[in-house]
Amino acid sequence: MARGRITGTALSEFALIDRIRERTAGTRRGVALGIGDDAALLDLAPGRQLVACTDTLVAGVHFLVDTPPAHVGWKALAVNLSDLAAMGAEPAWALLALTLPQADAAFVDQFAGGFAELARAHGVALVGGDTTGGPLSITVTALGNVPTGAALTRAGAHVGDAILVTGTLGDAAGALRLATTAGGRMAVDAALLARMDRPTPRVAAGLALRGVATACIDVSDGLLADLGHVCVASGVGAEIDADALPLSAALRVRFDPVEGRELALSGGDDYELCFTLPGGRAAEVVGLLDHAGCAATRIGRIVAGAGVRALDARGKVVTPRHMGWEHFSQ
Amino acid sequence: MARGRITGTALSEFALIDRIRERTAGTRRGVALGIGDDAALLDLAPGRQLVACTDTLVAGVHFLVDTPPAHVGWKALAVNLSDLAAMGAEPAWALLALTLPQADAAFVDQFAGGFAELARAHGVALVGGDTTGGPLSITVTALGNVPTGAALTRAGAHVGDAILVTGTLGDAAGALRLATTAGGRMAVDAALLARMDRPTPRVAAGLALRGVATACIDVSDGLLADLGHVCVASGVGAEIDADALPLSAALRVRFDPVEGRELALSGGDDYELCFTLPGGRAAEVVGLLDHAGCAATRIGRIVAGAGVRALDARGKVVTPRHMGWEHFSQ
Repeated sequence: MARGRITGTALSEFALIDRIRERTAGTRRGVALGIGDDAALLDLAPGRQLVACTDTLVAGVHFLVDTPPAHVGWKALAVNLSDLAAMGAEPAWALLALTLPQADAAFVDQFAGGFAELARAHGVALVGGDTTGGPLSITVTALGNVPTGAALTRAGAHVGDAILVTGTLGDAAGALRLATTAGGRMAVDAALLARMDRPTPRVAAGLALRGVATACIDVSDGLLADLGHVCVASGVGAEIDADALPLSAALRVRFDPVEGRELALSGGDDYELCFTLPGGRAAEVVGLLDHAGCAATRIGRIVAGAGVRALDARGKVVTPRHMGWEHFSQ
Repeated sequence: MARGRITGTALSEFALIDRIRERTAGTRRGVALGIGDDAALLDLAPGRQLVACTDTLVAGVHFLVDTPPAHVGWKALAVNLSDLAAMGAEPAWALLALTLPQADAAFVDQFAGGFAELARAHGVALVGGDTTGGPLSITVTALGNVPTGAALTRAGAHVGDAILVTGTLGDAAGALRLATTAGGRMAVDAALLARMDRPTPRVAAGLALRGVATACIDVSDGLLADLGHVCVASGVGAEIDADALPLSAALRVRFDPVEGRELALSGGDDYELCFTLPGGRAAEVVGLLDHAGCAATRIGRIVAGAGVRALDARGKVVTPRHMGWEHFSQ
């Protein structure tokens, strides 16, 4: 555990870390030495590769400043577990770097509660971190593992592969749009708000897709952008059937079909998995994921060439007015 | 590699990461998959434990806002390598979460240059990260390894052990005091400034101390505070001979003996190693470290009880006026 500095004296750094540690206690697989020294000591099982990623949430950029602290804690871990899920990795450990304007015990308790709730659900042990004084910002590093050679990457999509996506798309972007244009968080339906505040990392789906998917990525910047990364890494192009995009009932109630489709194509923050596999296996894999509690939908195909095109039912290219992720700042 | 968002368009996230990747290229031990996917895939050698830590630097809190970006890049990695050194770990990989107010190519180039210079010196590969828009802040996660069971911790100090410290103490705190009271960075001697801006993580010393030191910590919050952590973890007390504290020539020129001693006792940001070992081995180990290019000085002893006391030549307790780390904010 590295030392840090919190301005203000309401809560010492150590009290803060203790609160989070208490709430994540009980999950200590492979943790030889956790919080409380200069660094954590961790045991990786034989035959496994370490999988490591880090993601930062900045107040007002990645979450609305009035987001309940418990949701911020949840989301800070969730976006990282989503990256592990996209690799087909099993989450194991996390490190938390928390920068706070002041050492506010209520904020920390709620933040820790949300973080710990998701950590427990996935057997993730918090093994280290740092607390500092400054503008509110959270960086989580997630560490997981996969059997050596079994990780999913962005690089394996082949021409003719089907493209699928878990869950529904556009909900988080829809919630953000309502919150920023229609009167703040209070104006947003609970179902959409939950998708923005407490995204579900598709860990079980990622595990189920090992040995099945040819490429995988999580949808954080928006489907077109993220699928574009798969295309570049795999040296292929992609066609999306815009009418096949899975939209939630909540999104369809609040947005017309054209808007809903655009949110699904270009809205970020969904944290669903987008993956490819041989077309002949699509139905079987949809069934497999359904069995694992996660809906999946076939939305298009990998083609020769480069780039991602979304097509409507007449084969006409659909171009969203907004591309990519929208900032939470207005 | 997780996606992020930089406000402004001067430099895209990917250009930024590419600049850092180019500058750290060539070091790829155990990196099965580095930057460019959702997460990195890393191979830990058999018989080794993973050692993981994370530390954040916030502009104006952990470094003066006018610090050259190259130094900020160096220091962001150095403070983490120092934590690995305190565990006796060999550094291997790093993840970088960089939050920038705007995508400033000149800042990023210089930052990356400083980060990469230290990374190359220690064979550290940058394997992932995130870039986001927001107030300037850097979180690095460092990953290293030790032979299983060989890590140094804070918990093994025994009554009768000698207490030693590498290098000199108080220089960074002295530089900070001069900068904040005597006219900014320009008023500080180059030798002191370098100690604040470009601390040297004592990696080789940490490796040399495996199997020798009974406890080890890096001095980041100040000797009294950090040695206090060793005492708590080991269930012992400590006595420091205040007159034995190693002070640099540069510090002695700018501060009188009492001030110098206080800076050495309570000033943070030194990133030296403080360690304990059986008293009879102290001279031998000083020679061993000297051979590894690192001076070390015997400064006290572990005693029964609790807490840390600094004593002058007459055996009188020395109490610094300032305790612990001083913020960079004024």
